[in-house]
Amino acid sequence: MIELLLIGIGTGNPDHLTRQAEKALRSADLVLIPRKGANKADLAELRQAICDELLQGSAARVVAFDLPKRDAENPDYRAGVDDWHDAIARVWTDTIQAEIGDTGRVALLVWGDPSLYDSTLRIAGRVDRAVPLKVTVIPGITSLQALTASHAIPINEIGAPFLVTTGRKLREEGWPAGADTLAIMLDGECSFQAVDPEGVTIWWGAYVGMAEEIILSGPLAELAPRIVETRAEARARHGWIMDIYILRRA
Amino acid sequence: MIELLLIGIGTGNPDHLTRQAEKALRSADLVLIPRKGANKADLAELRQAICDELLQGSAARVVAFDLPKRDAENPDYRAGVDDWHDAIARVWTDTIQAEIGDTGRVALLVWGDPSLYDSTLRIAGRVDRAVPLKVTVIPGITSLQALTASHAIPINEIGAPFLVTTGRKLREEGWPAGADTLAIMLDGECSFQAVDPEGVTIWWGAYVGMAEEIILSGPLAELAPRIVETRAEARARHGWIMDIYILRRA
Repeated sequence: MIELLLIGIGTGNPDHLTRQAEKALRSADLVLIPRKGANKADLAELRQAICDELLQGSAARVVAFDLPKRDAENPDYRAGVDDWHDAIARVWTDTIQAEIGDTGRVALLVWGDPSLYDSTLRIAGRVDRAVPLKVTVIPGITSLQALTASHAIPINEIGAPFLVTTGRKLREEGWPAGADTLAIMLDGECSFQAVDPEGVTIWWGAYVGMAEEIILSGPLAELAPRIVETRAEARARHGWIMDIYILRRA
Repeated sequence: MIELLLIGIGTGNPDHLTRQAEKALRSADLVLIPRKGANKADLAELRQAICDELLQGSAARVVAFDLPKRDAENPDYRAGVDDWHDAIARVWTDTIQAEIGDTGRVALLVWGDPSLYDSTLRIAGRVDRAVPLKVTVIPGITSLQALTASHAIPINEIGAPFLVTTGRKLREEGWPAGADTLAIMLDGECSFQAVDPEGVTIWWGAYVGMAEEIILSGPLAELAPRIVETRAEARARHGWIMDIYILRRA
């Protein structure tokens, strides 16, 4: 039996690691690290640094694998994602079988937390069809928590709800019903520009929790152009960007 | 200047502590621990155990204070909460001034994460009016992440939103617009019973992340009575309970 440990590692600050994550990683026989070529957004270096530090004296093998590419040309987005997850599951399965056979503990370091807009659990479900797995999840600090910590704000108003959604949804459907506070993830297009800014406050952050962190907050009307500009400049400088924000309307 | 460190400690598993939390705690001159009398839900023992372990050799003073009681008789709920937060802020201010004066680092161990349905940041804002503060937030594992980790599930469907709300809202207003996935917090009354269970799945957990953890999941129609019974029994046995759940409709 293979035990797959999906370990949340937080958002790029090695000090986001929990003791539970450290113990899980040290208990692994095999650690799989994805590699996206020259793309720095895979944060392969960070994962490698965490392994180098924590696995000293451990027998764990650390194996990098090339992450298959999603076919962005597929007109059916969901089918494209499905095929991509299948391809990743095949790489995991092949690597696990080649490295440790059908018994042992395999660790994957998951950016943030495995529960939040992350595909690792879904891919694990596909591996499970080829090799029976026991999946263990170790929670990690999410980018949403790193954002609220950096701004020192609560995400909710007292007793009030908040909605977590994607940039695409905000852009295509506008401010959703049900909440005056929104957390927006997976937004590569500054979709806050699609919102009527009247009475709306934004708390934005890029590289939250990391040394490169940039945060900005204030009235959306005033901040929107400044965030667009800051984001473009930071992305050009670092070669990649991850950002997230909260919107609240009065 | 006082620096107030609001340190998320996760949900009762000492291994939820991050390295950042450990370092922050060890850097403190004063650690304030709330005490609610005989009520085990203050988890004063857990906080004390964390301090005992991490503060060995440190000069930090650990001071317990009696948490003021909220006037549950106040017909104006919000005013009652306001008065209560003011009273807690006064106790913090008095204790900080008596113990370390107006310079130093004060740590508060916050259950879960300070951003999520927690009043610590709001109380800190009130202290700031009496004693100028620098507030630093250290993120911690939330009960929501501990729940999804224990069930090994993602909280969102692919690219879809989810809404985080309270038991009271669910009970009084029904299933909110805007999301097919709900995370319900602060629910002392099994408010899932107010929902039409047709096509709804529940993932429930009590004491998530702790040794006492109980989790149940399945069709709401089938699980609701079992959760009500399990919850009452566990609460009677332990003298307190904290639980949380996710609802998803097809």
